[in-house]
Amino acid sequence: MRLASFRGPHGPTYGMVTDAGLIDLGRRLGARHPDLKALIAAGALAEARSLAGAPADYRAADVEWLPVIPNPDKIVCVGLNYEEHRVETGRDRTEHPALFLRVADSQVGHLQPLACPRESTHFDYEAEIAVIVGTGGRRIAARAAWDHVAGYSCYNDASVRDWQRHTVQWTAGKNFTGTGAFGPWMVTADEIAPGALMTLSCRLNGERMQHATTEMMIFKIPRLIEYISTFTTLAAGDVIVTGTPGGVGARRTPPVWMKPGDVVEIEIDRVGVLRNTVARD
Amino acid sequence: MRLASFRGPHGPTYGMVTDAGLIDLGRRLGARHPDLKALIAAGALAEARSLAGAPADYRAADVEWLPVIPNPDKIVCVGLNYEEHRVETGRDRTEHPALFLRVADSQVGHLQPLACPRESTHFDYEAEIAVIVGTGGRRIAARAAWDHVAGYSCYNDASVRDWQRHTVQWTAGKNFTGTGAFGPWMVTADEIAPGALMTLSCRLNGERMQHATTEMMIFKIPRLIEYISTFTTLAAGDVIVTGTPGGVGARRTPPVWMKPGDVVEIEIDRVGVLRNTVARD
Repeated sequence: MRLASFRGPHGPTYGMVTDAGLIDLGRRLGARHPDLKALIAAGALAEARSLAGAPADYRAADVEWLPVIPNPDKIVCVGLNYEEHRVETGRDRTEHPALFLRVADSQVGHLQPLACPRESTHFDYEAEIAVIVGTGGRRIAARAAWDHVAGYSCYNDASVRDWQRHTVQWTAGKNFTGTGAFGPWMVTADEIAPGALMTLSCRLNGERMQHATTEMMIFKIPRLIEYISTFTTLAAGDVIVTGTPGGVGARRTPPVWMKPGDVVEIEIDRVGVLRNTVARD
Repeated sequence: MRLASFRGPHGPTYGMVTDAGLIDLGRRLGARHPDLKALIAAGALAEARSLAGAPADYRAADVEWLPVIPNPDKIVCVGLNYEEHRVETGRDRTEHPALFLRVADSQVGHLQPLACPRESTHFDYEAEIAVIVGTGGRRIAARAAWDHVAGYSCYNDASVRDWQRHTVQWTAGKNFTGTGAFGPWMVTADEIAPGALMTLSCRLNGERMQHATTEMMIFKIPRLIEYISTFTTLAAGDVIVTGTPGGVGARRTPPVWMKPGDVVEIEIDRVGVLRNTVARD
């Protein structure tokens, strides 16, 4: 099942994405589950699934896509989680994942402008797999971690490299408004077996810039959930952005920066393609 | 005016702190302003102030203090913002503030247990001045920044040092549940002139461990607001935790770690004293 948040003709809502279009779940279930995060928190994915036969309410072309979860309590991002990217950055190996946080309002949805800030020209793409938390918890053991995953989505953790390197902490360069693209939808975890190989790519103006599989992740999804939930309580709708492979623009010779008008696509097999056009903020 | 969030006999609410006790503003204004963040966002501090003559509803001893803003959209923390602390950490000077984020549920209120995680014994205090944002905005110039400050409070940015140093990013060690003490209340900005000297101290079991004035901050409050609002839109109720002075436990010889039963106090003149007892999580 594909679930998305979007702005329809009657305002922000969420729904199921089918080949025929979008079924507005917010209209049908909104009294009990006002948004997708609430639907997940209520453990009501089966309730949503029972509406799969309903007629589509809107064509996909007629809605404005929002970040899959527009209002997560937290967005935990993993740095340096693919060996090829770690090597290209010249960073040391570590025994633990390097984590940073994004604020919710740094996010944008599918087909929305990816905002290149006026303060920088060093605007870089980062293809990532986003894990959306279903059942929350603290101190979740890796062996139990898959039970806490609601689904998967594409994420472009677009980064303002000069601001990321202003200091030893990456926060500023990772939190410009409109730089965290998240979509187009989430595919629920029942469609992708725990640990099944997933393939991740980034294309810039049609040219493949990054390509990797989850086999190449240094810290796999269960280990990330275990580590993060050691210090914080994961909640339904929380997003774990699991790191980018090698091939980022900053580490190319010469560097490749995204500029207004560029089209960047993040693709995960069995999930979908997230597409954004870069625009000057 | 002193404003606080707390759990009273009827549940979570917010109110005005007077010498006679607490005036429950949530009970009186809650229909329009459900929490302190909403009161600030509505620009309704004058409305709150008009109730200053009301009788106190509760004695301070009878409530459970919550973090001043329990639900900020974002908590932006500044590292290495006092020269003495920068030197003791051995970090380079930078032209920009080093920022990291805390998640809201890492916070605790005044007199609540400060949670020393079972995973570590390297639990350290950090006295800081918290700035609570009033009027939000993006790309706020330093010269206009004071107009965006709603008030000030004490913050203990308690840090799990070994986890902070797991990688180059400090996120894990700064986000354990129950480690960000925030209170007891905020003092509204009208009581402290823009740029007026403030004095900040930390006491551990009665012994002074840190002491500094805002004159010693490397990046002053207006500059912090300018820098942060360049990349993100500051919103009412957002919290900027402005950095800790020298004297942290990790940099003493031998190191001083907080342990269960320790009492740690953060004092800011004209604001108040935030007191917490360390407890094993």
